[in-house]
Amino acid sequence: MIPKRLLHVAQLSAVGIAGYYIGQTEKFNVCKESVLVDGKLISSKPGLPIFGTVSAAAPFTDSSIPKDRVSQIMKYGFPSLDQVRSYDDFVLSYDRRNRVPHWVFEHITKEHVKKNDAVDRSKCDFTPDESIHPFFRSQNSDYKGSGFDRGHMAAAGNHRLAQKHVEQTFFLTNMAPQVGEGFNRHAWNRLEKHVRKLTKVYDNVYCCTGPLYLPRKESDGKFYVRYQVIGANTVAVPTHFYKVVVAESSDGKLDMEAYVMPNQKIPDETPVSSYMVPPETIEKAAGLLFFDKLHRSKLNTINGKKV
Amino acid sequence: MIPKRLLHVAQLSAVGIAGYYIGQTEKFNVCKESVLVDGKLISSKPGLPIFGTVSAAAPFTDSSIPKDRVSQIMKYGFPSLDQVRSYDDFVLSYDRRNRVPHWVFEHITKEHVKKNDAVDRSKCDFTPDESIHPFFRSQNSDYKGSGFDRGHMAAAGNHRLAQKHVEQTFFLTNMAPQVGEGFNRHAWNRLEKHVRKLTKVYDNVYCCTGPLYLPRKESDGKFYVRYQVIGANTVAVPTHFYKVVVAESSDGKLDMEAYVMPNQKIPDETPVSSYMVPPETIEKAAGLLFFDKLHRSKLNTINGKKV
Repeated sequence: MIPKRLLHVAQLSAVGIAGYYIGQTEKFNVCKESVLVDGKLISSKPGLPIFGTVSAAAPFTDSSIPKDRVSQIMKYGFPSLDQVRSYDDFVLSYDRRNRVPHWVFEHITKEHVKKNDAVDRSKCDFTPDESIHPFFRSQNSDYKGSGFDRGHMAAAGNHRLAQKHVEQTFFLTNMAPQVGEGFNRHAWNRLEKHVRKLTKVYDNVYCCTGPLYLPRKESDGKFYVRYQVIGANTVAVPTHFYKVVVAESSDGKLDMEAYVMPNQKIPDETPVSSYMVPPETIEKAAGLLFFDKLHRSKLNTINGKKV
Repeated sequence: MIPKRLLHVAQLSAVGIAGYYIGQTEKFNVCKESVLVDGKLISSKPGLPIFGTVSAAAPFTDSSIPKDRVSQIMKYGFPSLDQVRSYDDFVLSYDRRNRVPHWVFEHITKEHVKKNDAVDRSKCDFTPDESIHPFFRSQNSDYKGSGFDRGHMAAAGNHRLAQKHVEQTFFLTNMAPQVGEGFNRHAWNRLEKHVRKLTKVYDNVYCCTGPLYLPRKESDGKFYVRYQVIGANTVAVPTHFYKVVVAESSDGKLDMEAYVMPNQKIPDETPVSSYMVPPETIEKAAGLLFFDKLHRSKLNTINGKKV
């Protein structure tokens, strides 16, 4: 059905990619049972094995984090349990294939977002997370010259209780490539501000953020997923980003909002509400279940509509 | 940088997709705390919750499976722990976003592959796995009319000890869309036969199989991942498939072979050995670590070359 010549070209390209990958691989002299990478000793985080297979559900046990903080952030359930990493003030699941998070979970209150002179985001550096195996770890060099911003999933402005909290939002595990002008610095930022403002009305705001790779119909009438990858570690550039938010008022009422925005320049005048979608839409596309412990019938509203 | 008109078109398309997803979603009247789906009562498998978040590492405890069978199959480590499902004679991790497996693990001996008159693959039906949440479950209707075969990852011919074993290889969790003519029915089948033949020389063969979505350089000089999705559940059509095999001889020597084949018609005369690649190449591309419990220095050969 597919012309033979095309197939041949495709095969040759595939071989080219294999060569490309092999080239990348040789950069790492990874000894799997040691922690020496490129001549550098990697220090493991407490409670987190450096490499692999048992880390998926390993709780972060750093004694400086209040014991119940992870439980508080994840009160309404984990969207998945793949490569979970818990930081002081947010929790994420890392997508080792795409080198960006699957989801990042935050619990935000007015205390977390209020101005704090002891916290200075300009002192923060984007830092690779060495708890991720070097095969799958994104690096600053992947983003450099790509034309994309290192876009925060857990927003820096949601973690102002301590300098350490805001610093941890600069781990590259919390980043995905975002269009800068008109998106990360504008429309996406407006959505982040909208979520922060919810803390003025609600006692607790639970926010799950992540990337999407949405299929599109092409000229042959078939649907394709297509996304760019950047740098030596082929970091995926998501086609879209989502936020699913549950806001809890003082009387215990729960309101849910769910947004999907395309990773591209968005006109300034577009209101964030125009990007609202049913949460199930995002769940199906992402392969995740949000706020799984909370039956949807227990919600007061979804996207402003009475449940 | 991107012309405004193009952005507008892209945005409209995104909305189109959202609409498409919403359309799909409404088909399911899923009550998250019940097991009633489309008016049908779903029965949970022993040891496996029907929906989600705690199933990642849940062992399958069906008393009909010898207790140590999963340990035997997974002797050298789990490549990841995302959505693991254990069947009587193979174990897999399901990719809820792409509706195909991440990896499928088999332990094969000459007993498993020898002709058995009590086993008849023609009596087997392709069956959706109801342990997967309906949002992410692939269906036969997704494949119908797509032009792609339902390609086995754990090959039916590797599970001839019992009818139940071969039947379970027909769960759609064990399938990915494969080009039929020239690939699934030919080149890929030759690779499966090659793996089976290893049992003539080796006592134990451990085989991990799965899909890849490899980036390719496009005309703008940038790298893109692009793959088709089929059916209402947007099942991903992988660009390539891999097999990583460890074969254990009676004297305990271990040989590893690793293959990547493009999901396309492959000329009959191509030897399987021409698709050998370094295993690290596959690990990086798949986001997985194969035979993680087995240090590579303990191997006798990799792809026929002395380690």
